[in-house]
Amino acid sequence: MTRPTNEPTVLDLGFARVDVGREARQGLPEVVYGPGKTAEQVKAIVAGLLAHNTGPVMVTRVAPEAAGEILTGSPGGTYDPEARLLLWRPAAIGSFKVMVVAAGTSDRPVAAEAATVCAAVGLDTTAVHDVGVAGIERVLQVRERLQAADAVIVVAGMEGALASVVGGMVRSPVVAVPTSVGYGASLEGVTALLAMHASCAAGVTVVNIDSGFGAAIAVHRIAQAWGGRR
Amino acid sequence: MTRPTNEPTVLDLGFARVDVGREARQGLPEVVYGPGKTAEQVKAIVAGLLAHNTGPVMVTRVAPEAAGEILTGSPGGTYDPEARLLLWRPAAIGSFKVMVVAAGTSDRPVAAEAATVCAAVGLDTTAVHDVGVAGIERVLQVRERLQAADAVIVVAGMEGALASVVGGMVRSPVVAVPTSVGYGASLEGVTALLAMHASCAAGVTVVNIDSGFGAAIAVHRIAQAWGGRR
Amino acid sequence: MTRPTNEPTVLDLGFARVDVGREARQGLPEVVYGPGKTAEQVKAIVAGLLAHNTGPVMVTRVAPEAAGEILTGSPGGTYDPEARLLLWRPAAIGSFKVMVVAAGTSDRPVAAEAATVCAAVGLDTTAVHDVGVAGIERVLQVRERLQAADAVIVVAGMEGALASVVGGMVRSPVVAVPTSVGYGASLEGVTALLAMHASCAAGVTVVNIDSGFGAAIAVHRIAQAWGGRR
Amino acid sequence: MTRPTNEPTVLDLGFARVDVGREARQGLPEVVYGPGKTAEQVKAIVAGLLAHNTGPVMVTRVAPEAAGEILTGSPGGTYDPEARLLLWRPAAIGSFKVMVVAAGTSDRPVAAEAATVCAAVGLDTTAVHDVGVAGIERVLQVRERLQAADAVIVVAGMEGALASVVGGMVRSPVVAVPTSVGYGASLEGVTALLAMHASCAAGVTVVNIDSGFGAAIAVHRIAQAWGGRR
Amino acid sequence: MTRPTNEPTVLDLGFARVDVGREARQGLPEVVYGPGKTAEQVKAIVAGLLAHNTGPVMVTRVAPEAAGEILTGSPGGTYDPEARLLLWRPAAIGSFKVMVVAAGTSDRPVAAEAATVCAAVGLDTTAVHDVGVAGIERVLQVRERLQAADAVIVVAGMEGALASVVGGMVRSPVVAVPTSVGYGASLEGVTALLAMHASCAAGVTVVNIDSGFGAAIAVHRIAQAWGGRR
Amino acid sequence: MTRPTNEPTVLDLGFARVDVGREARQGLPEVVYGPGKTAEQVKAIVAGLLAHNTGPVMVTRVAPEAAGEILTGSPGGTYDPEARLLLWRPAAIGSFKVMVVAAGTSDRPVAAEAATVCAAVGLDTTAVHDVGVAGIERVLQVRERLQAADAVIVVAGMEGALASVVGGMVRSPVVAVPTSVGYGASLEGVTALLAMHASCAAGVTVVNIDSGFGAAIAVHRIAQAWGGRR
Amino acid sequence: MTRPTNEPTVLDLGFARVDVGREARQGLPEVVYGPGKTAEQVKAIVAGLLAHNTGPVMVTRVAPEAAGEILTGSPGGTYDPEARLLLWRPAAIGSFKVMVVAAGTSDRPVAAEAATVCAAVGLDTTAVHDVGVAGIERVLQVRERLQAADAVIVVAGMEGALASVVGGMVRSPVVAVPTSVGYGASLEGVTALLAMHASCAAGVTVVNIDSGFGAAIAVHRIAQAWGGRR
Amino acid sequence: MTRPTNEPTVLDLGFARVDVGREARQGLPEVVYGPGKTAEQVKAIVAGLLAHNTGPVMVTRVAPEAAGEILTGSPGGTYDPEARLLLWRPAAIGSFKVMVVAAGTSDRPVAAEAATVCAAVGLDTTAVHDVGVAGIERVLQVRERLQAADAVIVVAGMEGALASVVGGMVRSPVVAVPTSVGYGASLEGVTALLAMHASCAAGVTVVNIDSGFGAAIAVHRIAQAWGGRR
Repeated sequence: MTRPTNEPTVLDLGFARVDVGREARQGLPEVVYGPGKTAEQVKAIVAGLLAHNTGPVMVTRVAPEAAGEILTGSPGGTYDPEARLLLWRPAAIGSFKVMVVAAGTSDRPVAAEAATVCAAVGLDTTAVHDVGVAGIERVLQVRERLQAADAVIVVAGMEGALASVVGGMVRSPVVAVPTSVGYGASLEGVTALLAMHASCAAGVTVVNIDSGFGAAIAVHRIAQAWGGRR
Repeated sequence: MTRPTNEPTVLDLGFARVDVGREARQGLPEVVYGPGKTAEQVKAIVAGLLAHNTGPVMVTRVAPEAAGEILTGSPGGTYDPEARLLLWRPAAIGSFKVMVVAAGTSDRPVAAEAATVCAAVGLDTTAVHDVGVAGIERVLQVRERLQAADAVIVVAGMEGALASVVGGMVRSPVVAVPTSVGYGASLEGVTALLAMHASCAAGVTVVNIDSGFGAAIAVHRIAQAWGGRR
Repeated sequence: MTRPTNEPTVLDLGFARVDVGREARQGLPEVVYGPGKTAEQVKAIVAGLLAHNTGPVMVTRVAPEAAGEILTGSPGGTYDPEARLLLWRPAAIGSFKVMVVAAGTSDRPVAAEAATVCAAVGLDTTAVHDVGVAGIERVLQVRERLQAADAVIVVAGMEGALASVVGGMVRSPVVAVPTSVGYGASLEGVTALLAMHASCAAGVTVVNIDSGFGAAIAVHRIAQAWGGRR
Repeated sequence: MTRPTNEPTVLDLGFARVDVGREARQGLPEVVYGPGKTAEQVKAIVAGLLAHNTGPVMVTRVAPEAAGEILTGSPGGTYDPEARLLLWRPAAIGSFKVMVVAAGTSDRPVAAEAATVCAAVGLDTTAVHDVGVAGIERVLQVRERLQAADAVIVVAGMEGALASVVGGMVRSPVVAVPTSVGYGASLEGVTALLAMHASCAAGVTVVNIDSGFGAAIAVHRIAQAWGGRR
Repeated sequence: MTRPTNEPTVLDLGFARVDVGREARQGLPEVVYGPGKTAEQVKAIVAGLLAHNTGPVMVTRVAPEAAGEILTGSPGGTYDPEARLLLWRPAAIGSFKVMVVAAGTSDRPVAAEAATVCAAVGLDTTAVHDVGVAGIERVLQVRERLQAADAVIVVAGMEGALASVVGGMVRSPVVAVPTSVGYGASLEGVTALLAMHASCAAGVTVVNIDSGFGAAIAVHRIAQAWGGRR
Repeated sequence: MTRPTNEPTVLDLGFARVDVGREARQGLPEVVYGPGKTAEQVKAIVAGLLAHNTGPVMVTRVAPEAAGEILTGSPGGTYDPEARLLLWRPAAIGSFKVMVVAAGTSDRPVAAEAATVCAAVGLDTTAVHDVGVAGIERVLQVRERLQAADAVIVVAGMEGALASVVGGMVRSPVVAVPTSVGYGASLEGVTALLAMHASCAAGVTVVNIDSGFGAAIAVHRIAQAWGGRR
Repeated sequence: MTRPTNEPTVLDLGFARVDVGREARQGLPEVVYGPGKTAEQVKAIVAGLLAHNTGPVMVTRVAPEAAGEILTGSPGGTYDPEARLLLWRPAAIGSFKVMVVAAGTSDRPVAAEAATVCAAVGLDTTAVHDVGVAGIERVLQVRERLQAADAVIVVAGMEGALASVVGGMVRSPVVAVPTSVGYGASLEGVTALLAMHASCAAGVTVVNIDSGFGAAIAVHRIAQAWGGRR
Repeated sequence: MTRPTNEPTVLDLGFARVDVGREARQGLPEVVYGPGKTAEQVKAIVAGLLAHNTGPVMVTRVAPEAAGEILTGSPGGTYDPEARLLLWRPAAIGSFKVMVVAAGTSDRPVAAEAATVCAAVGLDTTAVHDVGVAGIERVLQVRERLQAADAVIVVAGMEGALASVVGGMVRSPVVAVPTSVGYGASLEGVTALLAMHASCAAGVTVVNIDSGFGAAIAVHRIAQAWGGRR
């Protein structure tokens, strides 16, 4: 592994200063957060990243209409409507196996964002849905697959209990994503976030509510750091 | 079953007005909440309840020293140090089976309060501890026993995930008790309370934080109402 | 009663994995939560449940337009617009009497969900509305009816005081449903949820905010568990 | 009634600047909040108020030991240990009738503070305790007395439901005092405060948690303002 | 004053059970809360109240379009668009003087609701706006008018400081209404509500966020109770 | 003014790495936060700062007993018991005038910390106490002194209204310090912090709860930056 | 500097009472908060301020459509669409240098409000964007410019860490503006607000969430107060 | 790597049921949480784990007095007073390099727990303290060491900004531990927890407040999972 360089390489687009040095420094490009940006702005940032970086370029949380407009101006990309992700230049899939496991049907978009970003950065990714703990057999059915993964991303809203159950089953890293699914006492994901932190399973880590993206990058860090050692 | 009478029967002790009609009205005496009362006050209330009621008399959350002093003045009672409960005239054990299941070692005092009150009001009570979901096999080991109970009380702190797992296993009523066990994101039981409400297992009900007493009375209501039908 | 089987019986529809074993395991089918699902998805799940289960099939929180579309594709069902519930194959009404009591006019939709689900699973259900504690005579007027029920569901928003008043009147199980009715300090139901937990009436249990469904299933558990004993 | 003068009359004691003009301006002296002040400081403030004002002088939340020391240095006062109030020069009792009604035994200290301050400023005060709504007959028993009062102070912790029930019974002003009694979901009085604000009884007003003093002064304002009109 | 009768007088409209006995019991009719009710429902309730009561009938928080429709079906009423209040049969104005003082321009609708309801129940009502404490002279300018009132309603959002300043100026009752005006740290009125409770001015009472109605009824209780004494 | 140097100058004491370059970089030394450090540790850090810096050295929140022990080992310092501050080498007093104004007697320790740190860094500091807005004349009495200051620090707990009133009176910078004084709805200073942020007075800034130190350094920054310009 | 006059000069427009004395008293006019006001109301207030004051007149948070309408009726103004600010009679730019530094692209509108108001009141203002701490080199690149400013405004959402980093780099006053940018754990700016208060950099002050305006006025106070001294 | 076995292996000690199968299942023993357990109980659990497992045995959060008593009865262990950790049979140090970086002196105990547990499970661990972002040079000084680590644990209280800065510097996994250090707006660690989740640095994961243990086990999972692949 080449050690990162710390030279600042900022691309100034007037309305934004893009950190194009992040790829060299951290092994991951500055991923574009879609909300609040116009299609024109996104296109300009994507063009800059494509020109100054060599790896995958991603835009998250893009609505279908905006996606169409952006893709027209930035050819070569693809759009995943469930993950709401735009992607150019995905990495080749490597040998690091990550499994994304989601508790309920409503957690699918967040799980899709996690899985799509994982695949985009070259992780060998599989996903399984509707593995709620209220039907514990559904969890037991996938236990061996979970135990065979190099890392597991658990996506769950409401009480987030799946993180504890999976966290106690596997020896690999578990990254939990609370989702804003549910109503009332779910408090738009805050309950799941707190519950995952209070988890009785040791060593489970947590990312922000609905941040499938964050979980994927966390696993990318795990895969990448070890990649440098071998 | 005799329908309750609604006549107020208040015993005025000066410092307290005891609702001695509750036993006739609801099938349960006014249970004494210990904290904030002097031993003298507790003794007077207990004496009043023993004289005006015929069923069990209980004082909750009593420290050992206070318990000794109270028992001296109110003979015939017993003290359970783990449950911190004083009890006189326990009911005969009937046929309604309740199982108290607790997630961690630190949840034991609350589970003990639940189990002791259940037994005091005549429920056929068993308890099992250290059934955390992070070791799911421990839950599976007791699954059949849980499924054989007429009602289940789940006691869990931290993320409270055990309520969801058990709630999805049994067909009987499940009463969940969040505990103030844990630190940081556990928020002194608030996280477990919210998580249990957000549970993905349908029809699980919840009582106040650390209220083993409340869960036991909830099950007593279940047992009693049906008792009246037969 | 036949003891539940724990064999996983998952119906994989691609976009969802339906737990069709829940009916056998718990005596209740996997009820479909409507929001976030397309009419096509709901139709497919309903068809699966009708085919693999034998009891009632329900979809909650369905808007009228969606209901019409779903019913067209899944004949034999009915739609209750106040409860916003779709229902196929309701159970025969048994002898267990549940009374749903609601505090205010605005609490009606939640109370309707509770009552409709109770009836769908075979409970002998009655409902009474506008029983706010600020007109205590209205509560006293229905006291005898409340005392005659085998279980009571209390639906109340704002300060949720009705749960305490009813909880002190009856000997049967009381399941309280906080609602998101009210403004300002009502905090969208959180105040009522907390207040119901802090209730001075012993043994009242609570379900999630606006979850008439959850309360109904909780009572179904009570009715069903005893049913197995007789 | 003499209209208040707005001239500032500040007594500077070095460690404190006492607003001795409040009595003339508002008809009530600056009442001393005990916690955080030394006995010496309290004695100096009391002496100043006795010298520059003509009406009652009060110190709230005084522990018994401190009370003894302060009384030694400021003769002519009395100490109420339940209310934890020191009082000099109480006003003559007038014709305005206030009733203090408290929900539970643990609410007594706050109710005592309210009642003692009411009496100190000349209100015709009575108090009744242990009027919890879970035994609604206890409330009904005192209904006529409540309806005969010119104002009612309701003191209640936990879910604070008594404020709604009383608020719906009387036509006179109702001032509700939430108390920090209870545990878990009571959140040290915050739940009762919110619940009292969300009350379904119109026109109930609320003061700070545990502020028996504040409720008493609120009623004093009511009595006094009208007094000026006659 | 005639003491209230406690006989329940409930008008059952099918979709609502109206407490038409409240006027006799409490001296105020059941005021209709508009949101969530159809125009047809409101019309039926208004007709019932007009028929069974003799005093003012009010509907709060009514949008202009709905108001027009309701007035068509329930003649004799008037609509105040700023207060969003519908009113029939206002009471004759008496001698009790209430002053409504509001901190900012954005607080006007809540202040208007307070003032309109006060006038509707017969209070001699005046209002003054834009009296923010950041321009203390504006408060001082109205000080004498405030001191001449029999009761003061303070309406303020953001930090709610006006309640403390006015509370320290007058001897009459002060009812504070926090409003949901402001952004960020204003937390939709919760900050003002808490701040008004923590107020350094003794005896200020508080009603729910944005509840101009609640404050008006609180003052009506004050006026009415004394009215009974004379 | 000499522009700061950015060279790191860290003094490694083993148990702590002291930023002795802060004085040159920012014009203020690394002030020592006392709680959680042993007297030995404080002495070592103070010795290091005295040796490597040339300006004032301060330790905040020191209990009297610890202060005595530390002073013995680090001669030349003084201790202010009200501010709980240890100080060595105070700066010469300059011409920048700061006024510290506190709302209540209980706010004095925080105000004292602010004033003592201001004086230690060379500001011309005066303080006035007991200027609560509930006695607005007390504020008006000091208005001219407030208007003559170059900066004002407002210290207030409970509802924190003084910040708004003063913020609307002066043209100079106003730094508000919420304090944890009060009970119940004061929420240990959180209410005052939020209220000060929601203040209707434009351009008031806020520091952390009870941070008299933070406010003083904020004013020091103001004085210092301009000092560099002249 | 002329000391402020305290004479109240209120312009009564019927729907609003405008504090036209603020300019003389505090050196800044009453800035108009746009939301909730009609274009007609804004025009009237602007006309009043233009007539009775002599300095800049501003309206904040104005949508483009409303801006066009207002400008038509109040000629001579300009509209900044990014800052959403309407401005008449900007002050001449003086020598006080303020730098606005923003963490992310989404923070730009708030930063623009801060910068535009700063310039309007005569501060020598520059701004730099996209200076997130996750690319620390971007901060280091602007360090010298930050250190050369007389005051710094830091605008940051999410975790708000930029305030701490900048606060530790400069000797001048730092005013931090938390923004509501972010999702999930960002809690609409509350997390950034709390984090900025908990900042490890001494003497950083904070204004309300999204209040670029508040930060600008805070710096205006700093510039103005010293201006009076020279 | 041997795949884990899922056979339950529970050691029943009466007062606790110890999951001795966790070592085989997950590669880590059930670590004992000290608080709330008697020395006798800890000794029995430790003896059980030493007998039934082969790897390290740990007890966390043990006070010095208790530690002495436990070590007497369970020879061969060591106690780290800063980490408050008891340890038997530490693993041999391997090649996986973890760096623990802490923001302030007060964060040391949590950082020590993290580092001690890391070393106990065989990670090549180094730690650096007092790397607060308010002295950014201190962070830059250790940047190369951070970039050379295979994983980084960031320990920080107050605003927790160090996680963002470090998260943007390294390509390896970053596990952030919020601490309960700080006062006021720090909210006992909740602010740091939320801020770390809202971090602008992608892929940073978070564990519970003060859980140095949790972070260490999270890194152990990372090291171990890859270990199985090679």
